[in-house]
Amino acid sequence: MVRKDLLDLASLSREETEEILEQAKPLKEVFQRSVKKFPALKGKTVLMLFYEPSTRTLSSFEVAAKRMGADVTVFDVPSSSVVKGESVRDTVDTLQAMQADYIVVRHQMPGLPGRIAKMTKASVISAGDGAHAHPTQGLLDAFTLREVYPTEEGKRVLIAGDIRHSRVARSTSTVLKKLGYEVAYLGPGSLVPEVPGIARFTNFEEAWQWKPDVFYMLRVQKERQGCQFFPSVSEYHKLYGITEDRFRRISEEGLWVMHPGPVNRGVELCDAAMDYERCLINQQVENGIAVRMAVLYLLKQGEE
Amino acid sequence: MVRKDLLDLASLSREETEEILEQAKPLKEVFQRSVKKFPALKGKTVLMLFYEPSTRTLSSFEVAAKRMGADVTVFDVPSSSVVKGESVRDTVDTLQAMQADYIVVRHQMPGLPGRIAKMTKASVISAGDGAHAHPTQGLLDAFTLREVYPTEEGKRVLIAGDIRHSRVARSTSTVLKKLGYEVAYLGPGSLVPEVPGIARFTNFEEAWQWKPDVFYMLRVQKERQGCQFFPSVSEYHKLYGITEDRFRRISEEGLWVMHPGPVNRGVELCDAAMDYERCLINQQVENGIAVRMAVLYLLKQGEE
Amino acid sequence: MVRKDLLDLASLSREETEEILEQAKPLKEVFQRSVKKFPALKGKTVLMLFYEPSTRTLSSFEVAAKRMGADVTVFDVPSSSVVKGESVRDTVDTLQAMQADYIVVRHQMPGLPGRIAKMTKASVISAGDGAHAHPTQGLLDAFTLREVYPTEEGKRVLIAGDIRHSRVARSTSTVLKKLGYEVAYLGPGSLVPEVPGIARFTNFEEAWQWKPDVFYMLRVQKERQGCQFFPSVSEYHKLYGITEDRFRRISEEGLWVMHPGPVNRGVELCDAAMDYERCLINQQVENGIAVRMAVLYLLKQGEE
Repeated sequence: MVRKDLLDLASLSREETEEILEQAKPLKEVFQRSVKKFPALKGKTVLMLFYEPSTRTLSSFEVAAKRMGADVTVFDVPSSSVVKGESVRDTVDTLQAMQADYIVVRHQMPGLPGRIAKMTKASVISAGDGAHAHPTQGLLDAFTLREVYPTEEGKRVLIAGDIRHSRVARSTSTVLKKLGYEVAYLGPGSLVPEVPGIARFTNFEEAWQWKPDVFYMLRVQKERQGCQFFPSVSEYHKLYGITEDRFRRISEEGLWVMHPGPVNRGVELCDAAMDYERCLINQQVENGIAVRMAVLYLLKQGEE
Repeated sequence: MVRKDLLDLASLSREETEEILEQAKPLKEVFQRSVKKFPALKGKTVLMLFYEPSTRTLSSFEVAAKRMGADVTVFDVPSSSVVKGESVRDTVDTLQAMQADYIVVRHQMPGLPGRIAKMTKASVISAGDGAHAHPTQGLLDAFTLREVYPTEEGKRVLIAGDIRHSRVARSTSTVLKKLGYEVAYLGPGSLVPEVPGIARFTNFEEAWQWKPDVFYMLRVQKERQGCQFFPSVSEYHKLYGITEDRFRRISEEGLWVMHPGPVNRGVELCDAAMDYERCLINQQVENGIAVRMAVLYLLKQGEE
Repeated sequence: MVRKDLLDLASLSREETEEILEQAKPLKEVFQRSVKKFPALKGKTVLMLFYEPSTRTLSSFEVAAKRMGADVTVFDVPSSSVVKGESVRDTVDTLQAMQADYIVVRHQMPGLPGRIAKMTKASVISAGDGAHAHPTQGLLDAFTLREVYPTEEGKRVLIAGDIRHSRVARSTSTVLKKLGYEVAYLGPGSLVPEVPGIARFTNFEEAWQWKPDVFYMLRVQKERQGCQFFPSVSEYHKLYGITEDRFRRISEEGLWVMHPGPVNRGVELCDAAMDYERCLINQQVENGIAVRMAVLYLLKQGEE
């Protein structure tokens, strides 16, 4: 792969996507065996620039980079500080001057990682930017589905929740479509955009008729509850969640359940669904490290 | 040692206790010489899960693990968040999916590390859980006393403070009893439980008559001061602390002073006692790293 | 160099200063090539003791130490806690007992790193103490100027801002004088001390007549604005900053611009000055790592 940055999945070619997914396989084994390091990033410096808190994604990148021998430094940014474009530029200049080989960025502003990528010769990886993209999440979801369905033809993935504001929905559906899955969205009408080539449901029963193979439940952002179009969490559970009733039908048919984590139990998923053998959540976490190792391994640092 | 976890010292056999203390000896030398790493944990991932802040214990584990070549990642948990059992389960599943080899846990809920240990094949080490246990503290105290008294027979250790709410008191007295020391407790009546085999005092002079060889002073939790049974810090100092007067008697007889740190000067100990050559506090800190290295080295990761 | 600590630049001999600057040259290449580690600090433990927050200086030391293979642990100190001398002593005893080889300290109290250095056999490096000193900043500034002017003779550096309260001004002017540069201060009258051998200006035009080769702009501490002698930021910009107008004259004459970062754009410097090819800010950041590597490399740990 000759690409310097990973900013979204829309601009990744099918071949590049496949290359990352292929590379993640042996790296997952390296990672799982846990015998030795795979020191491909020895002498490299990874700087984590997280303007939004995210323990899980941060730790996953940290573990992935350290496992390959990189030096990881968290560049602590006060999450409360309002960050203007100019000051980001100065921060990035600083990181580049520190000879960062990789900058992993999370920020609420859509497109910011892309702007940063143009400012630096370091490899920039988006770890989530507003509602725009969360590319390593999409890749780990695709990798996880591949483990379940080596051939994706005709397989149907239903993504449920507040689609409109979800970077996970966007990145995951982008990569799944690219690989040949059929994708549908389910959620409150005002929160499900119309996207060509993606089925759209606002009612669980109609979505069930579509016969999904996989139920991908988005995390409910509880702080959105006050919003005009968003139901209360108990309403949400009844309308779009995997209730115990729906779980019975899902498990009877041996369908799969996914979630980017962390789960609000009793909201997106009932407890029984969490313990379900075809619930892929932990596999997603594990694959997150393998996929992030692959991304770090394949990106090429270049000239500004 | 075939044990996966270190959760408390009560369930550790005498042989296992001795094995850890023996192993800590050469590791202390490795650590002290500081010449090279002892890369026994190379390729291993240690995840620190601290629900209560603790700079010293956290840093001690970090230094111990890094010195043996492990990758250490602090999994940042908001200390303010009320943590329900279920969400801990999900967090632990995440850490396990990240292939943590060790999870070091501190939490205010007694018994939580034990519950976590059952959920994961990672080695779980309690770094303090409520008033229940703080096993590496007990071990480092035992190790430190062994350096002073190679033969423990007949040696008497007085532990002073709020015994009832102290995991240090519990873990340290458990291991000392197991090794053959005589132990007594001193503190305000309502805060000193009656424990078979442990002498109990509520008055310093009576405790002095018991002829302790070692004065182990617990840290006063200043936030407890408002509580019904707890005196003010100045009263505490007069009643149970090592005042200048008592220090004179202690130093004249060449007795030893211990404290788990950090000390509230003028409360548990007067300044003179801190500078006393038989004050073992810094030796305890140093041995803390050796003992934690030994624990990390000896625990075996296994199946869930 | 037989020195254990780096506490200020006044007590460093010319020879020691030159030795650090010389050593930083090959280390900058090691660092820039980024091919491999230079494991001179393998097995060494660096403890960061920051009582004042400072993302940039902290990260710079972290990257420098990790690049040489050291284990770095940030000893987290609540920045809000009022720190009494005695408790610092206890903290340092703890770090020493943890076998820290280096303690990097930032604290608002002038002279505290020096007091700490006397308490420990670890090498103590000041990363800024009140208005007293910030020696690695001075060294990186000197190193950066050397890259521009291999011969310093007759070169003139104007340092502008709140000189009185600036440890950067103090350390940087100390080392530049020692190396043979001419130094002048510019700022509000009450904030520019009279120092033998250093020209003193309170008016930009007069300072301009002095014909500086380099404009070294100090960062404005916005929290100082309320103070009696300190102008508002817009006034400051007009009186002492590099306005667009002044920048035109600076760039026409090919003069150099420096700043310790992070810049308040529009206060110390206009935007155009930030993009100026002779603005050395990023070079300063980069050299900061090289110089800190050199300091870590050259200091010798010794007996207490």
